[in-house]
Amino acid sequence: MSIPSRVKLVDVGPRDGLQNEKQPVPAAVKIELVHRLQEAGLKEIEVTSYVSPKWVPQMADNAEVMAGIVRRPGVRYSVLTPNMKGLEAALSAPRELWPDEIVVFGAASEAFSQKNINCSIAESIERFAPVAEAARAQGIYVRGAMSCTVGCPYEGEIAPERVAYLAGLMKGIGVQHVGVADTIGVGTPVKVRKAIEATLQHFAIDDVSGHFHDTYGQAVSNTLAALSLGVWQFDTSVAGLGGCPYAKGATGNVATEDVVYMLQGMGIETGIDLDKLIDAGQFISDHLGRPTQSRVAKALLTKRASASACEAV
Amino acid sequence: MSIPSRVKLVDVGPRDGLQNEKQPVPAAVKIELVHRLQEAGLKEIEVTSYVSPKWVPQMADNAEVMAGIVRRPGVRYSVLTPNMKGLEAALSAPRELWPDEIVVFGAASEAFSQKNINCSIAESIERFAPVAEAARAQGIYVRGAMSCTVGCPYEGEIAPERVAYLAGLMKGIGVQHVGVADTIGVGTPVKVRKAIEATLQHFAIDDVSGHFHDTYGQAVSNTLAALSLGVWQFDTSVAGLGGCPYAKGATGNVATEDVVYMLQGMGIETGIDLDKLIDAGQFISDHLGRPTQSRVAKALLTKRASASACEAV
Repeated sequence: MSIPSRVKLVDVGPRDGLQNEKQPVPAAVKIELVHRLQEAGLKEIEVTSYVSPKWVPQMADNAEVMAGIVRRPGVRYSVLTPNMKGLEAALSAPRELWPDEIVVFGAASEAFSQKNINCSIAESIERFAPVAEAARAQGIYVRGAMSCTVGCPYEGEIAPERVAYLAGLMKGIGVQHVGVADTIGVGTPVKVRKAIEATLQHFAIDDVSGHFHDTYGQAVSNTLAALSLGVWQFDTSVAGLGGCPYAKGATGNVATEDVVYMLQGMGIETGIDLDKLIDAGQFISDHLGRPTQSRVAKALLTKRASASACEAV
Repeated sequence: MSIPSRVKLVDVGPRDGLQNEKQPVPAAVKIELVHRLQEAGLKEIEVTSYVSPKWVPQMADNAEVMAGIVRRPGVRYSVLTPNMKGLEAALSAPRELWPDEIVVFGAASEAFSQKNINCSIAESIERFAPVAEAARAQGIYVRGAMSCTVGCPYEGEIAPERVAYLAGLMKGIGVQHVGVADTIGVGTPVKVRKAIEATLQHFAIDDVSGHFHDTYGQAVSNTLAALSLGVWQFDTSVAGLGGCPYAKGATGNVATEDVVYMLQGMGIETGIDLDKLIDAGQFISDHLGRPTQSRVAKALLTKRASASACEAV
């Protein structure tokens, strides 16, 4: 295995993780979560999205959250912008509150694209062309999230050719970096590698990241498979925040803690302090009133508790 | 990656999984679990252990369980024998009820060996010499379980040299196959590979298996790392049965279902029917009155439930 010596993780917890919460999380809690993540050493955080509050009321406080964050030099703050209106909203704030990066998206599955946004993959990407152009004109980096690159809840398995097709469309509208997402967590190492290899037809390895869901417990293993291809950027979510709407009760995003644990164990530099990261996860889990989804956090919190019990004796 | 085209899984649930249950599981339930596992296609099952009922009351019904199993041709039934008395007990039954394989064990950590069995590693293995010899004289296969090959709850990290040392001792007393166990689940891919490579100094690749705990969510990934070295035999536990005494509430053995899911997704032959395996896991989880630890089982059971709900409409 030729493995990268350092890895950058993008914590998507505040946005991707919290957007499905029934009870919207207060802006102050989101801001505190972002602060704790950057304190733990995360170098990029997906903070919020500029979507219609009618559709995603959980992110209606986007401007408040962006304004409330005390930014750290060297940390990149990204937001999801599903259309020009969203980008305009993000850029209506004073310049120092602008995101460093916007995220546009598309699916590698036609059925998913039709069912979710009622248009073809090609149409959906074409609509992002002016958004990408306007963002880049302002010096804002454009990332493309490619969903359903391994499997789709409607179509089943997705051929790597469809991933290459989507990556080509993204490249065509000026997207600078793409994330290869296994949205429903059905991927296994060989399939994930094929999806990444298809993406590499259009993007350099430094412009590709992995985004794996842990629904079937495969995300850490898929991360290892991607690492062995040279991928060194991954989206993860503190405490495993973010459920999968297609498998209630199952887990969604892979927990940042679980990936950091593997990377550190392999001697790969992440710049992340695992203890502080676990504290950040505990902070948001306590707020949500449910246990963390991270196995590493569960194990280490149990260890901490028994150490305290021993000290108390 | 050069990956084996077929993999054999040894389900250790009935023994390793159930031996820590506070409320001993009735023999009839264990027998039914073994039947369901072989029906699902498992080719080897670790059934029980012949230890003093004073120490492990959960396995006091060993003879009853061994007598109650309707054996299938092609399936291997193994039992743990910690000493000559245990082997004699196992062989006191009629020949057709004998195990096909016995398991002896040792730790790669001196501290663990001292704390748990009050003797050095070398002494502990030497005590097994007559057991291994007597078993082989009767045509019974001898497997050695090597614990703490990556980390130890007392010593911390374990050097690969200690694993090689233990493997050499095992080889010296006539052990035919060894399992490289990450007993406390702290392993990550590079460390696990080093432990296996150390073992390969004394055993051929066909005589080495992996036994990974999922306490830190790394077991599936570690399985992938071992596969890429050519290891094609793994111990797993249906429904993830078996806790880790050092991390209460955390998971122990990796779930057979989660490993099968990865292997099948990679096109690797296992001979296992995942649906039947999930049913077996549900059977024992229902008996124990707690949810399965398998992420695959959780996801697929949720899918089944929503499919039934749709059909019911």
